[in-house]
Amino acid sequence: MKPSRRQLFGYAGAAAAGAAVTGGAVVALDKDTPAPAPVSRNIDPYGDRQPAITAPSPRHGELVAFNLLPGTDKAALARLLRLWSADVVALGNGRPAPGDTAPELATANVALTTTVGFGPKVFELAGQKQAGPDELPVMRHDRLQDGWSGGDLLILVGADDELSVVHAVRRFVADARPFATPAWRQSGFWNGTGPDGKPVTGRNLFGQVDGTGNPAVGTPEFDATVWAADGGTTLVVRRIKLNLDTWDELTRSEQERAIGRKLSTGAPLTGTAEHDELDLEARDADGRPMIAANAHARLSHHSENDGRRIFRKGLNYVHDTGTTRESGLIFLSYQADITGQFFPLLARLDAADALNEWTTTIGSAVFAIPPGFQPGGWIGQKLLG
Amino acid sequence: MKPSRRQLFGYAGAAAAGAAVTGGAVVALDKDTPAPAPVSRNIDPYGDRQPAITAPSPRHGELVAFNLLPGTDKAALARLLRLWSADVVALGNGRPAPGDTAPELATANVALTTTVGFGPKVFELAGQKQAGPDELPVMRHDRLQDGWSGGDLLILVGADDELSVVHAVRRFVADARPFATPAWRQSGFWNGTGPDGKPVTGRNLFGQVDGTGNPAVGTPEFDATVWAADGGTTLVVRRIKLNLDTWDELTRSEQERAIGRKLSTGAPLTGTAEHDELDLEARDADGRPMIAANAHARLSHHSENDGRRIFRKGLNYVHDTGTTRESGLIFLSYQADITGQFFPLLARLDAADALNEWTTTIGSAVFAIPPGFQPGGWIGQKLLG
Repeated sequence: MKPSRRQLFGYAGAAAAGAAVTGGAVVALDKDTPAPAPVSRNIDPYGDRQPAITAPSPRHGELVAFNLLPGTDKAALARLLRLWSADVVALGNGRPAPGDTAPELATANVALTTTVGFGPKVFELAGQKQAGPDELPVMRHDRLQDGWSGGDLLILVGADDELSVVHAVRRFVADARPFATPAWRQSGFWNGTGPDGKPVTGRNLFGQVDGTGNPAVGTPEFDATVWAADGGTTLVVRRIKLNLDTWDELTRSEQERAIGRKLSTGAPLTGTAEHDELDLEARDADGRPMIAANAHARLSHHSENDGRRIFRKGLNYVHDTGTTRESGLIFLSYQADITGQFFPLLARLDAADALNEWTTTIGSAVFAIPPGFQPGGWIGQKLLG
Repeated sequence: MKPSRRQLFGYAGAAAAGAAVTGGAVVALDKDTPAPAPVSRNIDPYGDRQPAITAPSPRHGELVAFNLLPGTDKAALARLLRLWSADVVALGNGRPAPGDTAPELATANVALTTTVGFGPKVFELAGQKQAGPDELPVMRHDRLQDGWSGGDLLILVGADDELSVVHAVRRFVADARPFATPAWRQSGFWNGTGPDGKPVTGRNLFGQVDGTGNPAVGTPEFDATVWAADGGTTLVVRRIKLNLDTWDELTRSEQERAIGRKLSTGAPLTGTAEHDELDLEARDADGRPMIAANAHARLSHHSENDGRRIFRKGLNYVHDTGTTRESGLIFLSYQADITGQFFPLLARLDAADALNEWTTTIGSAVFAIPPGFQPGGWIGQKLLG
């Protein structure tokens, strides 16, 4: 779809006014300039699917896992999910949630989305068997901490403004109070916009372009990768500590060899552009594979897994304890089928990935992501209604 | 200055392309649309003054205070400041800092700024007496923690992208390693853009419009408030914990009475628009002051301080310990003269401010902010060169 000139200008005008403010006054819009027509950047909270999954990565995201309180039965959980669904709609539209104690902090046009996930206990309460596994097997390289693992319920809020995320999360936590208590919280950030304002894949704190292998949203391959038959999916959350100090001791070519891609563009070592297909057979003058046997890009390539993929949307994180900073990646992966799509990949990377030397997974959780909902409905209605 | 249509469209086009990505695809720019001319959102790192002070509040900011190592003498400190100055210039222009181990994380057009501040030890090393006080007197309501207080040097990095801030801070900390070690780190966020894309004052986590009383950048009043004779200023950093739970127990009119302003617009209780002047004499039908004697807006009003003001640029923060979240405000205040402009205000608020019931200052630090520098120069050159 090609936008009309009017659409483009109307929208661009609104964006420019904001950019002139946040961006250091490159363009001074004076007071006589007519106000551009406001254009919504809200993301429709309704739909057959929860909308954040296919939306662009937010600049800021926060995940809160909850444990259900002992008294929370199926009916109580359904009450919570009706409350949360009303919150999801209001906040996604930039309106205060019902009973919001700081209603002015609900802001429109920040692309706020909420995703709700279910742990195994939700299925137990519903008297159903979860389709996928309850949790991931512990890998040899994992150093899991209880404080970052598991959970009965998940809220994942994303937006381009951190204040909006923090405010929304506070509403979800407050509404959950009679039913569930936070088990862990993780916050992170992503930059999916290049310096020219165009979309980019984004980089993790190692400096790598991260997510190139994703199927493109809207393609049949994406749909086959992500959506289960019921319109839901599953989410794997892994908290991966990155040892930036030892990573920095490598030369750039050592770093690129561990990844199998160029740091500059994310192109495979056998190509020139980010989305060039990997040539896994290519060899250098000495007969060695150009993409090493233990390179991350080779081991995580879908051709190594019968063509089956996952869809990743990570968030970078920093976590300070006193003056010590831990840096890492909140690895988020969506797939229709954890056992078939994610397990083999995880096991293969644990066995051989060159990056294991500089990464340590310290948290792991799995959630079923139920389908979306329509006006009058609520999240999880089919399971718990 | 009125932008030409071409300027506006050219800039707006670049902004729109980015917004279409980050904002949930309101406008689908297809691949045939010609790329808009890139427009710089970099903020010039050079100048008579350090540039962040008059720039719009960044979406994300991080402060790191450093303590000088015992071996760092005047010459060594000058070496560090020359290194840092080169970093300030490169990163502000979106280029990697010299020796950057993750050069691809340096991103242009994110409005990145760095401000460098000096604690008392810097003046000692320079063999000079600091113009202002070394630290603030401890107030009756303060509950200061060493972990958030003091420091010999300060770096304050702001940008509209957190990854860029985190990357820049890592460079400054790495370059400081032979000379100084982090004493504390504080990160926060601000939303200075309204839902229509226009600049707004912004709100703290109590939901208050926060900063209305500031003198406007570019006015003689601003210059008189902020700039000392040498082109520098001083920065007060106070970490103020906000008790959102007890604040939320108040009615909205109790909250507004404590502030002296309306939550909806930030207008004084005696007015209708945010920037209406306070009528401190106005009384209600029962003869009580409409803006209470202990209202924050009254006690912090410049008329209570011989007309002298401060210039505030706060950052909201959240700080998680396990699942417990502390919320607050990193209070940042710039003024030419701490003793004359800030002390009386601080003492008056400590004595009587209604907000004291829901706020606790847990960190406090004071830094001299030296003038800016020009190509070939460096920060602090006049003091240490």
